Amino acid sequence: MKLKVKHLKIETGGRLICLINKEDSSRFDILPGDRVSLHKGNNHMTFLVDITSNSKQVPCGNIGIFEDLKKVMPLKEKEEVEITRDHKPDSIKFIKDKLEGCELNKEEVSRIIKDLVHHHISESEAAYFIAGCYIHGMTLEESAHLTEAIVQNSLKLEVPREKILVDKHSSGGVPNNRTTMLIIPILTASGLTIPKTSSRSITSPSGTADTMEVLAPVEHKKEKINEIVRKVGGCMVWGGTRDLASADDLLIKLEKQLDLDPQGILLASILAKKSAVNSTHILIDLAVGPHAKHSRAEAKILAKNFKKLGKKLRMKVKAIITEGEDIIGRGVGPALEARDILQIFEGEGPQDLKRKSIYMSNILLKMGKHKAHAKELLDSGEAERKFREIIKAQGGNPKVKSTDIELGKHTYEYKSKKGGRIKEVNLKLISRIAKYAGAPHDKKAGLYMHKKLGNWVKKEEPIFTIYAETKTKLEFAKEEAEKNNIFSIRWI
Amino acid sequence: MKLKVKHLKIETGGRLICLINKEDSSRFDILPGDRVSLHKGNNHMTFLVDITSNSKQVPCGNIGIFEDLKKVMPLKEKEEVEITRDHKPDSIKFIKDKLEGCELNKEEVSRIIKDLVHHHISESEAAYFIAGCYIHGMTLEESAHLTEAIVQNSLKLEVPREKILVDKHSSGGVPNNRTTMLIIPILTASGLTIPKTSSRSITSPSGTADTMEVLAPVEHKKEKINEIVRKVGGCMVWGGTRDLASADDLLIKLEKQLDLDPQGILLASILAKKSAVNSTHILIDLAVGPHAKHSRAEAKILAKNFKKLGKKLRMKVKAIITEGEDIIGRGVGPALEARDILQIFEGEGPQDLKRKSIYMSNILLKMGKHKAHAKELLDSGEAERKFREIIKAQGGNPKVKSTDIELGKHTYEYKSKKGGRIKEVNLKLISRIAKYAGAPHDKKAGLYMHKKLGNWVKKEEPIFTIYAETKTKLEFAKEEAEKNNIFSIRWI
Repeated sequence: MKLKVKHLKIETGGRLICLINKEDSSRFDILPGDRVSLHKGNNHMTFLVDITSNSKQVPCGNIGIFEDLKKVMPLKEKEEVEITRDHKPDSIKFIKDKLEGCELNKEEVSRIIKDLVHHHISESEAAYFIAGCYIHGMTLEESAHLTEAIVQNSLKLEVPREKILVDKHSSGGVPNNRTTMLIIPILTASGLTIPKTSSRSITSPSGTADTMEVLAPVEHKKEKINEIVRKVGGCMVWGGTRDLASADDLLIKLEKQLDLDPQGILLASILAKKSAVNSTHILIDLAVGPHAKHSRAEAKILAKNFKKLGKKLRMKVKAIITEGEDIIGRGVGPALEARDILQIFEGEGPQDLKRKSIYMSNILLKMGKHKAHAKELLDSGEAERKFREIIKAQGGNPKVKSTDIELGKHTYEYKSKKGGRIKEVNLKLISRIAKYAGAPHDKKAGLYMHKKLGNWVKKEEPIFTIYAETKTKLEFAKEEAEKNNIFSIRWI
Repeated sequence: MKLKVKHLKIETGGRLICLINKEDSSRFDILPGDRVSLHKGNNHMTFLVDITSNSKQVPCGNIGIFEDLKKVMPLKEKEEVEITRDHKPDSIKFIKDKLEGCELNKEEVSRIIKDLVHHHISESEAAYFIAGCYIHGMTLEESAHLTEAIVQNSLKLEVPREKILVDKHSSGGVPNNRTTMLIIPILTASGLTIPKTSSRSITSPSGTADTMEVLAPVEHKKEKINEIVRKVGGCMVWGGTRDLASADDLLIKLEKQLDLDPQGILLASILAKKSAVNSTHILIDLAVGPHAKHSRAEAKILAKNFKKLGKKLRMKVKAIITEGEDIIGRGVGPALEARDILQIFEGEGPQDLKRKSIYMSNILLKMGKHKAHAKELLDSGEAERKFREIIKAQGGNPKVKSTDIELGKHTYEYKSKKGGRIKEVNLKLISRIAKYAGAPHDKKAGLYMHKKLGNWVKKEEPIFTIYAETKTKLEFAKEEAEKNNIFSIRWI
């Protein structure tokens, strides 16, 4: 059938769908969620269809084109396109197989992920895939196929292959924990090459990319990143892209709906990021605690499977279990965390963050067959020199000092409601307060912890200070802080 | 947080979602698919959130309101509303339980269906529920809970309760098969009360409601339907509503994505329609054949489970397995099927449709403890009298004759490509051709079968005639007919 293009000027958030009138859909036997091919000249592409009964929006004989679809298939207003019904892609059959408990092979997993990334399967169809992985589990082979499929369908950095390329990953849920910003300078100072890509915050008050951005730009083109790495041996850049939602982002979004977290998908999602930059040796930091992502029991199983899956993918993976009961460092939010890092390089700052970074650096140095000691590289100023070289290469001010870091002008001191010892910190609430204050969007917003887990406090003694860029956001964060029990304080 | 209303003038097809700017979502820790409550005065309602990074569409500080949401919560442009983050509804937990293999109780099933109908859970969340039902199956208890939940969350006809209220259901996939339009007059003629509600076509060339509409209006208010039933003892009206998508419509839409058809949901979906009109005795007609919905083996299991589930729901259910290898009757499409029915009342017309209707009527009469014989009621003209009374009560012309029925002016004769005996008819293709010709939207469109399964045909002898209201649609149907193998014709 032939239909006339009507642009709808509506974004769908990446979903590639078109809209047709109910009368046309009934005539051509098309249901919502069916697929049609749009033909224009010799090109054709397949899209999902939605149906409208509003003839003002899409009159009979027209096809409504959303902004996102227009980007991948440029069509003129009122242009005539040929539409044909299209079959379900094969990946739907493979999803059904997984739901029924079959093990999928490499080709099948690859097709599912490819169709997911290109929006040829809908969110609910992808949910069936997650349901299958959750109920029946995934074999290590399937996880390996999934890792490879995610890598194939993501934009690769194309970092030069090195014989030894170390990398690290920390599991979420623990605010600050910015070990990356100390580990990378230490390792590059030792002579290792580390093109480190980090994420921006999804649900946290800051990701490593957000914090690094306080000191230097983190969004660079592939060529520029390669140039930086060649020049100074390392980088700390954002690993995402504004153009393509990665397969694991899409899977994670759907898992969150039911708080499912199939281990096979989790393993693949993390190792895919490492495989995409050709890492050979990877350290996984699994923080455990009452508010961290994993329990100790889960972390133990995960650690084992990370190692096994790494072997299948020809990567050497070591996983450590670390304490995640308290914030690592003192600042929460981009600027406050960046200040912590600068203070450590200046010889002061939070010692827990320094200790953890040295511990992890030493493991990575050993994995990379280096003899150097992390503490020496840090104390001698060599790591700081590298750190400032990286800042400069990425376009920041290499002379920046911790006192240069500006914080939000609007502040509020949260005071202890009673005296005693801090026995528990609700990290989820701490994160939320920092976010309500404006982090990570407002770089200068967040909070600074005067007291940490295990410290003694007097009644009315300040436990933390909130920083915000506007008065409204400060009020909002303050309200959230005062109405909840963030700390459990007891006389032992 | 307070946000200003911005109307988006976009329909979402029933989904109750609002759209907020990415910056606000990040600040308030809201992800796509999260839920927020909108407060206005003392009212508040919970909706799903989508996020946009297009500040022209929804600027920071605004909340985009789709048309469908506006209908359930009227809000003025630029009006300020208070937004709070909302927890996931309990039904999400129950869905996860089902996915993990737990049996759900009445309350849990009821909450899931309620939230589904009110769009408090998303399509992908509902897909997880279907996945759970598909993989783990459903107990008869769960199917009974589901039936009751669907009934509770659908608009009820509130038909007066009778001691004996018979009803019938035919499974899909067989064109025409309009037994209802003969059975209802026969049964009302025998003295039984039958407030029959039928469906419109979803994927077929005509539903019973579409066919009946050729003879009389089928959309009536509850009060009017009750009045008709009181007056003439029966009716044949549309059982749907334009306002509320029923729970089973939503479930069926999601099942179709993977061609899943969990038996527990199928049973509940059908018996819920019967329970909603207080039926006490139900006959289920399961047509089997190579192109019908069920295989013979499936139909046998279904028949047993229909009976068992009926018992649980205090309904007497009998299921029969019938042949579904060929069209029942000769017309396909609203007007052509209505003409078949009128011809039968006039003493002629397709005998297979007549025989099947008499057979089913006799079973229903026996279930209703009546002694009358269906054939006598039909041959004596008593059924026809009732039929015309119902047409009149619903606002149609009671004197209508089969020759009054107008058919599409544009016709095409499909001729046999070779001589021999018709050994197989592709019913899916027949349906598609009728739809391409315009049915059910164009009432006069469809096709008429000159030859049926088992008939001998000569080369170039007409097998069927296509009727269409426009030349373009005729061409479209003709092309589809000529390019496919609809019949398998062999010299035995």
